Amino acid sequence: MPDPLITITTDFGESDAYVASLKGAILSVNPSVTIVDITHSVGPQRIEQGAFLLGLAWPHFPANTIHLVVVDPSVGTERPAVAIATPTGTFVGPDNGVLSAALPDEAREAVIGQTGPVPLPTGTVCHLLANRAFHRKVVSNTFHGRDIFAPVAAHLSRGIPLEELGPTVPEVTALPPFRARPQPDGSLLGLIRHVDHFGNMVSDVRAEQLPPPPLLLEIGGRQIRGLSDTYGRSKSLLALIGSSGLLEIAVGQGSAAADLNAGIGQPITVRPA
Amino acid sequence: MPDPLITITTDFGESDAYVASLKGAILSVNPSVTIVDITHSVGPQRIEQGAFLLGLAWPHFPANTIHLVVVDPSVGTERPAVAIATPTGTFVGPDNGVLSAALPDEAREAVIGQTGPVPLPTGTVCHLLANRAFHRKVVSNTFHGRDIFAPVAAHLSRGIPLEELGPTVPEVTALPPFRARPQPDGSLLGLIRHVDHFGNMVSDVRAEQLPPPPLLLEIGGRQIRGLSDTYGRSKSLLALIGSSGLLEIAVGQGSAAADLNAGIGQPITVRPA
Amino acid sequence: MPDPLITITTDFGESDAYVASLKGAILSVNPSVTIVDITHSVGPQRIEQGAFLLGLAWPHFPANTIHLVVVDPSVGTERPAVAIATPTGTFVGPDNGVLSAALPDEAREAVIGQTGPVPLPTGTVCHLLANRAFHRKVVSNTFHGRDIFAPVAAHLSRGIPLEELGPTVPEVTALPPFRARPQPDGSLLGLIRHVDHFGNMVSDVRAEQLPPPPLLLEIGGRQIRGLSDTYGRSKSLLALIGSSGLLEIAVGQGSAAADLNAGIGQPITVRPA
Repeated sequence: MPDPLITITTDFGESDAYVASLKGAILSVNPSVTIVDITHSVGPQRIEQGAFLLGLAWPHFPANTIHLVVVDPSVGTERPAVAIATPTGTFVGPDNGVLSAALPDEAREAVIGQTGPVPLPTGTVCHLLANRAFHRKVVSNTFHGRDIFAPVAAHLSRGIPLEELGPTVPEVTALPPFRARPQPDGSLLGLIRHVDHFGNMVSDVRAEQLPPPPLLLEIGGRQIRGLSDTYGRSKSLLALIGSSGLLEIAVGQGSAAADLNAGIGQPITVRPA
Repeated sequence: MPDPLITITTDFGESDAYVASLKGAILSVNPSVTIVDITHSVGPQRIEQGAFLLGLAWPHFPANTIHLVVVDPSVGTERPAVAIATPTGTFVGPDNGVLSAALPDEAREAVIGQTGPVPLPTGTVCHLLANRAFHRKVVSNTFHGRDIFAPVAAHLSRGIPLEELGPTVPEVTALPPFRARPQPDGSLLGLIRHVDHFGNMVSDVRAEQLPPPPLLLEIGGRQIRGLSDTYGRSKSLLALIGSSGLLEIAVGQGSAAADLNAGIGQPITVRPA
Repeated sequence: MPDPLITITTDFGESDAYVASLKGAILSVNPSVTIVDITHSVGPQRIEQGAFLLGLAWPHFPANTIHLVVVDPSVGTERPAVAIATPTGTFVGPDNGVLSAALPDEAREAVIGQTGPVPLPTGTVCHLLANRAFHRKVVSNTFHGRDIFAPVAAHLSRGIPLEELGPTVPEVTALPPFRARPQPDGSLLGLIRHVDHFGNMVSDVRAEQLPPPPLLLEIGGRQIRGLSDTYGRSKSLLALIGSSGLLEIAVGQGSAAADLNAGIGQPITVRPA
């Protein structure tokens, strides 16, 4: 298997020196590793959005990839720093829920409410980043991304054993699954989880949850009948299964978010027509 | 010759997981290839702008570079997916005109109107991406960038023969040349094709088209006499030949687009003074 | 020591083909070099901001890194093109002050006023980029980044000796140190030098300049008493020492810049409480 890649997902934006500092910290440890930006446009401190976007991206990377995630509003307080090794990738970052993307739905079903600890599934291990040998010499209170997570990811990419990072923990902090909820009346109630650059609204309603056609969708007081195959054929509001298997609301060659004047958190209902 | 690079030009923006998914799809096939972003800021579905920007960038890359282009408003409909191999680069993407940058002006002169099929020039071949062995196992209707174009580009970077991609076609879809049109009165009529980050307005008037000095330019009701050598010497509206050999309208340390309150599509006239 | 990295800092933004042209020019000379973007969001032609951001980033890179900087409002006029080799990195760009980040404070103390020539410190050499063998074959008047700085950086990354670039010069153009000024009344007077993506306001008051606690800070008519340890514990205006050792004004999970309605250039005063 070739050398591992490192991906980076942050809420840092692109206008500062923070992302470059992460990359410098990584390349100072492993100058030959390939780094790929997932996105730095997670909303400031929006842990849920970070977990959602990482969940869309990581399945396209090799299973030995190291995913570095820095959406860390409580940096310097008591939240642990961890590395979660799964059969499909290793995830390094704060244990605040943003690493939920590392866990299968079944593990995340255990969460009651907005966020909480869940047991690790079989085959997945989580280590606390306790061993200072793999951190920056001086660790700041405010930038563990640069001082702890990035150097740890770089050392992992060089092949150091996980066991050297620190002790294991049996639980990690998770968000509930990004998945629409069946309602007593037989409908599905989902939420818009992301609005993309084109104004397409990406929901947590999954293709495999849909009842048999014909379907009736309701969002923001508007109704949509049936699913389209592509973005290309209509300039009116339409629904389709997007490239990650999630229900999206779109306007062909336009912006659904502008059309509906709505965004993240907007409810969407799906029922048999 | 060293291993080929892959460049990426899209209208995806930087705030989603789409660009990262392309890169993951590439690196899953060829983990050691170097990927360079041209830009992801092509206006949504603006095929002409994508072709124009790629045309400015590709001449600076080695001749064995593979240029992946995803500006694909009709994804999932009937437009073909192609790879165009030229003596100066290989271009992979939808056959909707955005790959016009791969063709010399002479080939594009055959287009009547906004877009149309043109014969390929000698030395250039175009293959349909028909062979599913080089696609993602599951191909979505909505993201051929990730599922077809990226894996094909990655396989090409590993050296698979073009012939294996699919059958050749004798024509590709092209836009007319980005080049000002001589008018009956002896003037040149060009268009602004791009407004850059500084507000400089880049036209399709080429240095070699200009009549001998002195020149008189007209844009948006304003007149400019003669050309400047640099951006640095004036805070008023000026014209100069930019770094790609195209006539630009600029304001030294200011924004010409703001000054003129104009943008892409604005006509510009050049005549002997 | 592994092959050198090349970093790039510009005011080009991300929406044009300029950054890609730089990278193509580099990779055409050295196809195997790793390139890292510092940022392309320096304000247009803001030399001081470019020098400040590069100064925050470069200390995180290996000492053999080549830092390419293109914030060059006077391109094509008389300002020299230089490479400054220091014990902690080599800096390539225009000699207009943006390479100040290459110089220690002691050297920059010699500047009177906004910018000026200073002697090079021991161990640092500066070469004019006079040797056209390392430039692009055709050098434009308007894009020395692509035509001179990028190819020179790429040749340096391949190991060509500095001496071959051109003659040495004993002085370079520098900005005064980014450091608060002690006032006659015993206070420190600093300036906000950057506002980051979160709205945190980064000043030039350094941790080691601070008087012993308790402290009283004044900015924009507001007072802040004492320093916080982290961003995480307060939703009111707070001050802390950021990850680069500089005093920052922040609002936990909010924007200090929005709260104060202020930005770059805002004065800040620190005194014993």
